[in-house]
Formats: sequence, structure tokens, C-alpha cells
Amino acid sequence: LSTPSNTVADLGERAIIDLIRRRLPAAPSWILTGVGDDAAVVEPSRNRADVITTDALVDGIHFDRRFTPPAAVGHRAMAANLSDLAAMGAEPRVALLSLVLPATLAAADLEAIVDGLLALAAAHGVHLVGGNVTRSPGPLVIDVTAIGAVHHRRVLTRGGARPGDEVWVSGTIGAAAAGLQMLQAGVAATDDVQACMDAYLAPQPRLRLGSLLGRNRAASACVDLSDGLADGLAQLANASGLAIEVDREAVPLHPATRAWLAARTSDAVAVAAAGGDDYELLFTVSPRQRSRLRAVQPHLRGLTVTRIGRAVAGSGTWLTWPGGRERLGPGYEHFR
Amino acid sequence: LSTPSNTVADLGERAIIDLIRRRLPAAPSWILTGVGDDAAVVEPSRNRADVITTDALVDGIHFDRRFTPPAAVGHRAMAANLSDLAAMGAEPRVALLSLVLPATLAAADLEAIVDGLLALAAAHGVHLVGGNVTRSPGPLVIDVTAIGAVHHRRVLTRGGARPGDEVWVSGTIGAAAAGLQMLQAGVAATDDVQACMDAYLAPQPRLRLGSLLGRNRAASACVDLSDGLADGLAQLANASGLAIEVDREAVPLHPATRAWLAARTSDAVAVAAAGGDDYELLFTVSPRQRSRLRAVQPHLRGLTVTRIGRAVAGSGTWLTWPGGRERLGPGYEHFR
Repeated sequence: LSTPSNTVADLGERAIIDLIRRRLPAAPSWILTGVGDDAAVVEPSRNRADVITTDALVDGIHFDRRFTPPAAVGHRAMAANLSDLAAMGAEPRVALLSLVLPATLAAADLEAIVDGLLALAAAHGVHLVGGNVTRSPGPLVIDVTAIGAVHHRRVLTRGGARPGDEVWVSGTIGAAAAGLQMLQAGVAATDDVQACMDAYLAPQPRLRLGSLLGRNRAASACVDLSDGLADGLAQLANASGLAIEVDREAVPLHPATRAWLAARTSDAVAVAAAGGDDYELLFTVSPRQRSRLRAVQPHLRGLTVTRIGRAVAGSGTWLTWPGGRERLGPGYEHFR
Repeated sequence: LSTPSNTVADLGERAIIDLIRRRLPAAPSWILTGVGDDAAVVEPSRNRADVITTDALVDGIHFDRRFTPPAAVGHRAMAANLSDLAAMGAEPRVALLSLVLPATLAAADLEAIVDGLLALAAAHGVHLVGGNVTRSPGPLVIDVTAIGAVHHRRVLTRGGARPGDEVWVSGTIGAAAAGLQMLQAGVAATDDVQACMDAYLAPQPRLRLGSLLGRNRAASACVDLSDGLADGLAQLANASGLAIEVDREAVPLHPATRAWLAARTSDAVAVAAAGGDDYELLFTVSPRQRSRLRAVQPHLRGLTVTRIGRAVAGSGTWLTWPGGRERLGPGYEHFR
């Protein structure tokens, strides 16, 4: 179907839908109606609530096709949504894909986008059950809706933190923002550089961590860091009605991120915190529930979690060090 | 917040989200977490399956802001999705709104879009529980996901028609396409012209009809006519593995549509059938279940349903008249 010169306009709507359908694995029996009808019909997961999220990636805003391969575009579109489900403690089940495609998009690029998206979906047991394909007189837009399930007493919200709770984060901070700068600068990919680039190109949604934190009631609140650490801290502090202090020295930067930022800024931690696209989880733990977090940790398959600070009465988010503190910036706002 | 000169870029992401949140009515208790967290959490409807659909409207493709007021843009984005739920026999419950906004969009236009969308949602008891706002370097894109509920043995699919079934359609055909031409031509709005324009600007999703057809098991198959009658017939015939013959004289055209098309084409019925944006339902009824359809009709609040043809063994879709028949065109394909 796709030759090097083929565009999506050559294919047309029905061939595009067929191209996607051919790539779908067999649907489980709880998907009563999948792709191909007016809507999908899905049997709910017994005794659990539906968790629903949507996130769009726009060419020129959220990615640059000059250095983001199409498979990475598809991966990131799915990852952004699965990360939101992870932050609620939910297990993902189904997704819908809404594509707004410029007529000049190469058919091979569309195939790679769909392959990247479906590979991450398959890795997490997510089934594509529907969507929409339309033409764009402007940029490529990939809008994914993901639906998961969670027991309604195991939901992780942003608003459950209490003063005195510890503040924890998974993985490392700032690697995706550094990786994006490395890609933009065309840096040669050593192992360290590649780790940062991969953090940007192929972020891993922390579904296992989110689900374990919820099921074990280890966390009092949780948010994902799609817009970076500073934004996540502000969202959690605002929703919980308190302040958060972060120990500057405790923030886990990947060594390559630290080296990259140290050569370019006087405050690597603040810059890493302001960078977006970290799909890590930020969560709070009551000191009384610390043993529950310890019970979760052996099941994280190598993912580290790091205590970086504490929730306190008040408002705002702060970077602290022995003898001082300063306000953290508000983080990335998509629209500006 | 919005002055005549304000754009959405002046507002920024958080103010845009606030603008939407302020307009939301109180959420019912089955919405466990609404707008403002990483994802929405919704208690499923007891003993019913989730029905999920997504549909995007793109400026310059699906509407032209020169003659589509912003409130109509919002209305149509919600209507397209609710019509898909109607075609499955589902009752709508929640929706998500993904907005891709050009920076120059007037804040007042955004408010009107949201108001139009929420007014139709409220009329059908649909709650907005989440979404996403991002910047567009190109056109305005409004992507809605709608989720409803249906008993899993009352689902209306496209594939259930059998040879011998009667083919029925709600309302009238072609009014939206004629209304769009009238808007493009700047025709003065007499009552008849206004009826066609309204069919385009403010289509009414046939949720009550779909739900009654499903609950009463009156229909064997159903599809909505978002891409017009010819497309709906082809979808239903293909999915059910049969042919459909439509009596040319039986196709219900609104008088103003017939007059408008008769002045411009030699075959008003075929042209009306090819036109998109009819959000009517096309459904099949087994002759043995005719009494069930009769039981539904008194509850349709004035909406007419018209028998237009029959399903027969074979393939394809046909316009028939005494002594002859011709193939119907394939209908509108979005991508071309």
C-alpha cells in the first residue's frame, strides 16, 4: 500500500482506516464492538470505575518532525495519555485515536506513527477500539483518548496530600528536556546522551508504580510530570491546599542531564524542574504509611523512587537548602 | 475576562480552563472526579456497557467560520458525537473536550463555542468531565469524545440487518447540505430557508429514537447519517453483507430542500443522498418486528420515521423506481 511517494491523500479515508485495522491484535471478549461501527462498546471492569483522559500532540508545538521520528510521535501521543492514567492509579484498557492529517503526510510516516502508538499500547495491554480520521489544512494533530479502570476507593487524586506528608518522585528529572535540547543541537549520541534523548522520544508511563501506589494505599496524592516537576509540584500543592518544600540536593537528575545543564546554566535543578515532558510520577506519602511504600518498592522492576521534600502548611512551592529557600517557578504553561 | 480585543493567547491555558470550568453545572455523584485532575473518574452505569466515540471538527474542513457562528461550531462538535451514541442505542453520560486553538482566536468566540457545546450537552444530560487545551499553529480543531451507556443486549450495530428487513430513516434528508449551500450563497432566511440552515448549524442528535429502537428491540441494525444517506446505506449494507434498495419516491426531502435542489440538479434525490451532515438515523426493521416500531413511534415527540426501502441478498446500494434501478454513489469520504 505505501510506497515512498505515497501520501495519505493518495490513500483516502477508508484505506487509512484499513491500514490501522490491519495492525490491531484480536480483541478480547469484553470489547463487545471495536473499530468499524458508529462507536465502540466496552464491558466495564467489574466493581471498578472508568478513568478517562485525552491529550493531543500538535506538530510544531509538541514535537518537531525534523528530529522526532514518526514512530516516536506515535509513542509519545499514547504515552502522554497512559501517564495520566498512571497518575490516577488506574490500569489502562482501551484507547481511541483521532487523527488530523495534512494531505502531504507520507503514507509510510503514518504507518510508523500508528506502529509506534500501537507498540506502546500493546506493551501495556491497551486495545484501540475506535477513532476518527480527518484532513488537516494545517499541522498534523494526534489526539488520543485513553480509558482505564480503578477501584473507586483506590483512586489517586492531586488533592489528598496533608501537611507533614513526604514528597516522592520516580525516576529522574529533566532528562527529557535535556534530550530535546540535545536533539535540537544535533549532539552525537553517546550512551549518556542517548539516555536523555530516549527520555524525550520514548517516555515510559509509570503505570505499574501508579497502580501499586493506589492498590496498596501507599500514596496520599499523585500527579504525573508531563509538564515538568515545577508544574507537578504546583498542581499538587494547589489541589491539596498546602505548600511543598523540595530539598535542592535531593532532586534526582540523570548524570548526563546534570552535566548538560551544568555547562549551560548556573542552576541545573531549577532548570530541570522547569522542563516539561518528564512522564514520571510525583506523589506524597504519609509518614505513617512509609511501610506501605517500602512494600511497593521491590515490585518496581528497577524503577527508583526518591524522597525529595515535604508538604507543609501554607501555599506555594519552594526549593530549599541548608539555611535558605527560594520560590520555584510556575512551570510550563502550554498555551503561552 | 473577555473584551472585544482579547485573544485566547491573552488568556493563557489556565484561564481558558477556568473559563470552561465556570460554565459547568454541578456534577452528579456518579462522577467521582471531574475536570481538574490527571483524568476523570466515572462510576459505570449499573449492568450496562460503555459506548465510546470521538469526532473532530477542523476549521476549513468541517466548517467555515465566515458563515458558521462560533456557538454553532460548538453545537456541531457535540452533536456529531452524540449522534454516534444515538446510532448505537446508547444514552450519553459524559464528554471530554480537546481544543487545539490558534493564538489569534477571539476569547469571546471561544466562550461562544464552549457555550454552544455545553448547551447541547445539558439538553441531553451530558457532563463535561475533562479535556485538553493546546495551541495550534494552524486551524482551530475541536475534538470531542463522548461516552454513553447501553445494555449489552440492546446495542444497535451496523451489521445486524437481514435480507427482507425494511429500511427506515428519521426526519428528512439533504437539508443540512442544502442549508450549507444556502449559507455559502448568502440567501435571505425565509422560514423554509432557515429550516435548512438550522439543519446544518444546529443538527439534533436522535438520541431518543436510538434509545427507544434499542430498548424495544425494534431495529435490527442502525447507523447515523453524519456523512449522508448514501454513505449510511453503504456502511449498513457492507457491515450486514447484503444489498439495499431505496425507493426514489419514498426518500423524505424537506420541501425547501427539494425546491433548492430541483433548481440546481436533475436528480434531487441522488444529490440529497450524497450530501453529508444529516444527523438522522438509518435503521432496519424485520417485518416481524414492525409492531415494535409502531409502539416506539408515539414517543418520538413529532420526529417522523419513513420507510424508504428494503434489504435484499447481494451487495451494493441502489435507487429504484417502477421498472428500473441505478447504483447509488458511495457518499462522502472525509479525506479526499
